[in-house]
Amino acid sequence: MAHKKFSRQYHKNREERPLDNIIYGRNSVLELLKAGKRTVNKILIAQTARGAAITEIINTAKSKNIAIHNVPPEKLDRYSENSQGIAAEVSPMEYVEIEELISKSKQSKNPLLVLLDGIEDPHNLGAIIRNCVAFGADGVIIPKWRAAGVNETVSKASAGAIEHIPVSKVTNTNQALDLLKENGFWIAGAENGGQILEEANLPFPLAIIIGSEGFGLHRLIKENCDFLISIPQTNTISSLNASCASAVILYELSKKRI
Amino acid sequence: MAHKKFSRQYHKNREERPLDNIIYGRNSVLELLKAGKRTVNKILIAQTARGAAITEIINTAKSKNIAIHNVPPEKLDRYSENSQGIAAEVSPMEYVEIEELISKSKQSKNPLLVLLDGIEDPHNLGAIIRNCVAFGADGVIIPKWRAAGVNETVSKASAGAIEHIPVSKVTNTNQALDLLKENGFWIAGAENGGQILEEANLPFPLAIIIGSEGFGLHRLIKENCDFLISIPQTNTISSLNASCASAVILYELSKKRI
Repeated sequence: MAHKKFSRQYHKNREERPLDNIIYGRNSVLELLKAGKRTVNKILIAQTARGAAITEIINTAKSKNIAIHNVPPEKLDRYSENSQGIAAEVSPMEYVEIEELISKSKQSKNPLLVLLDGIEDPHNLGAIIRNCVAFGADGVIIPKWRAAGVNETVSKASAGAIEHIPVSKVTNTNQALDLLKENGFWIAGAENGGQILEEANLPFPLAIIIGSEGFGLHRLIKENCDFLISIPQTNTISSLNASCASAVILYELSKKRI
Repeated sequence: MAHKKFSRQYHKNREERPLDNIIYGRNSVLELLKAGKRTVNKILIAQTARGAAITEIINTAKSKNIAIHNVPPEKLDRYSENSQGIAAEVSPMEYVEIEELISKSKQSKNPLLVLLDGIEDPHNLGAIIRNCVAFGADGVIIPKWRAAGVNETVSKASAGAIEHIPVSKVTNTNQALDLLKENGFWIAGAENGGQILEEANLPFPLAIIIGSEGFGLHRLIKENCDFLISIPQTNTISSLNASCASAVILYELSKKRI
């Protein structure tokens, strides 16, 4: 852990803003419209914005009777320098209760949930959510404390994938693991020194735990795992970053879920 | 491509700074010292910084007779809000000539090089370099234009991995591919719709091309590939981000290189 001074600063910078109400970026806005899960109040498009994605967004918004406002580019720059000339005002994203997440996931042939243990960086969280959707996981569980919540940075980093997967927020990670176990889930944690991913014959329903890089899993959580798995790699550096590790694990698991 | 206004802004923000001379962050500085490839002029440590990593850095620096300066934390904040209380002043990182990269890589049993086609985001570039080192690739080739160069953001995002792998910068990507082919390399590009990664029996020596997300490979580069490979995934969203795609590809290849 960094010294307190840096730690405090770190958390301050990443303080969770309310799940507001602006989604920006071309992919994110397009996925938002396609998913149709959230109420879109209006679309803001920079007067200078052009291109196939913009046209697709305009057509989709029109087909859903969503108001489109042409605005000066500076207005969008205020939201983010990465707005790509487009933003949407939406209803807040709703977290799903973990009981609901579990029961929905059990409709899958091989239920797979991903629990994140202290991922503090919103870009990492967004990228992991994107991987979850790409490889067909059924849901994501994030802790309420000392972790990034779903804000507009996460949404952008997920390239809109956040619209396609239920996310549950839990106060106590170990209680969530107990609940998963009661519901028949096996728990596998990603940890250096664990069983080799490809060789681990992981059973479903399965919850995979990805820890924050540099720290790995918390001790209590590790003790709560049925399996510990690792990704074979050279010893030159310590480990992959959390989003790349999740991509490899979910990729390997997706082969076995067919 | 985004509209010109956004495009220009995008490039301005990511303009390559000189390969300067500050490495910050605990992992990055530690890997820098361990690798011993670059001359470290001095180490700057915040007076408030504590912890095992800091102690290891101090001991390693002392054993190499590198000067250590205790500085007020604010001084390091000036470099980056992510300094974690530590920075090193170093000699610039040197790119390797592509001919040298190729000849060195051929000392491997199964030579593997990674060529990046227009990765503009330094965090992505850093994460990809980290994956290259984690999965034992022999070198990285990046284009000179319309791509991120190796700066301190890349170094930090690579968690110091940049110190452990040679990087070559080329003016013309297609000429680089020709040179690779003349030297016996097969060329495989990552492209949606390509052969399924696991089933593609890729031969070595091999150069893998990773394109920038959202654009894929440039047409001419695609035509220059011997193989196109893809990562099977759900159709819900368009694709993985470039660093996660590289992790999965390098992971799968690392199984076959043993």
